[in-house]
Amino acid sequence: MKRSERLVAMTHYILDRPRDLISLPFFSEKYDAAKSSISEDLGIINKMFQHEGIGYLETISGAAGGVKYIPAFSKEESHRFVEELCEKLEDPARLLPGGYLFMSDLLGDPETTRNIGKLFASAFRDKDIDVVMTVATKGIPLAYAVASYLNVPVVIARRDPKISEGSTVSINYVSGSTRKIQTMVLTKRSLPQGSRVCIIDDFMKAGGTINGMRNLLMEFDAELAGIGVLAEAEDDEEDRVVDDYLSVVQIMNADERKSSIEVRPGNLLENI
Amino acid sequence: MKRSERLVAMTHYILDRPRDLISLPFFSEKYDAAKSSISEDLGIINKMFQHEGIGYLETISGAAGGVKYIPAFSKEESHRFVEELCEKLEDPARLLPGGYLFMSDLLGDPETTRNIGKLFASAFRDKDIDVVMTVATKGIPLAYAVASYLNVPVVIARRDPKISEGSTVSINYVSGSTRKIQTMVLTKRSLPQGSRVCIIDDFMKAGGTINGMRNLLMEFDAELAGIGVLAEAEDDEEDRVVDDYLSVVQIMNADERKSSIEVRPGNLLENI
Repeated sequence: MKRSERLVAMTHYILDRPRDLISLPFFSEKYDAAKSSISEDLGIINKMFQHEGIGYLETISGAAGGVKYIPAFSKEESHRFVEELCEKLEDPARLLPGGYLFMSDLLGDPETTRNIGKLFASAFRDKDIDVVMTVATKGIPLAYAVASYLNVPVVIARRDPKISEGSTVSINYVSGSTRKIQTMVLTKRSLPQGSRVCIIDDFMKAGGTINGMRNLLMEFDAELAGIGVLAEAEDDEEDRVVDDYLSVVQIMNADERKSSIEVRPGNLLENI
Repeated sequence: MKRSERLVAMTHYILDRPRDLISLPFFSEKYDAAKSSISEDLGIINKMFQHEGIGYLETISGAAGGVKYIPAFSKEESHRFVEELCEKLEDPARLLPGGYLFMSDLLGDPETTRNIGKLFASAFRDKDIDVVMTVATKGIPLAYAVASYLNVPVVIARRDPKISEGSTVSINYVSGSTRKIQTMVLTKRSLPQGSRVCIIDDFMKAGGTINGMRNLLMEFDAELAGIGVLAEAEDDEEDRVVDDYLSVVQIMNADERKSSIEVRPGNLLENI
């Protein structure tokens, strides 16, 4: 195989396996090339990944060493993407009763969710994360996008148990903004003890739902490793029961009657 | 930029945009290279994509022409993946009451869901599809995986309307296996009239839920373009209200008391 051909194959192989440790001997055997050539190839790939703003190759030296592709949006790409997102969200036609925002069109676009996933994976890249958790329904595509770049599984809590899930653990929690008592369940065999969990959701007002997930983690003897939300409603700041989270955008001054809304970048960008 | 570097960047760019038409002049300008060089590069990329079993570049000639990356699992890769999946599912510990099968661990693994998405996208590659549709909750990751390789949006029907969705259209349908009347809703602004829709779900017994989604499509003057399910329970074959679908695996003779189950490849493999 020629170098040019090998570079195409290796680029695909690496992009498909973020955070997997891939050894030089493995590549050397797979593509029937000298280790020195593979090493040069990896140098080119690393350079170009950084040039394209999609991350870098981390080199682990030693006998059990190799390379890992760490997906990481560049600062410029992140800013460009978040600013575009703010513009799209800052449309009064999106306002729904109760200060909610219609976002299903954006959440329904696989490219947008992939980019949001890449953003969170970039921001959380130094955290030790075993599992991404969300609650049904709208956080699910975001959770998968993040998990796919972190290369970890997803677990999904639900509001109601379902027959095709097996036995579950359930908790009650108080919704932060409506003060109603709600239930959340998680399948027993879905989360191993001691897991380090990153919570992802689409929208946070006072944070009751995320707090519910946090309580659920305790039942599973799991540990919270990070919290990420796509949009936070800044108007509910004083009722907030969750701190230490990353948000992609902040929604301010949502006013249905005046049909006005303001959307600005959240604190995630500071962590890229 | 050297050819070797350009190939890494172009491979990433193309993989990230399945089914998008990318023109030669665009690449030529982006990477500051002669069209003849770009054309050779695309030849190498096309050859290697086929070699790796991940699809091919379709060439559209003429002034408005260019290339499109069509993701398509090779026959060998597809068979290998489906057989592995059958083996994992054929574990009696997965049996749940009512002939259901615990699959959340597999559905929770982003690599597995990506591969299932690639399978469906390969099988549906000649269909004209505008939107992928599923119903909450467990079909969601599969729907996004398929949509991501087909490069189309996802719409999600729900069992209950939610405040953060806006106004909805709702239908009643009869569950095929339990004969219960159920409700399904879809946000009004989520599905444009005349859309060609591919329905994706995780599990099909008699097919009542999928039939419900089909009825919902009629309310939106949308057209059914294809149906794909991860697992079908073959034991319910005679009650089936849906035909003309693709399944990845078939579950046969699920017997909770005997703790036995048989899982074999579905009809999707015949369409790869």
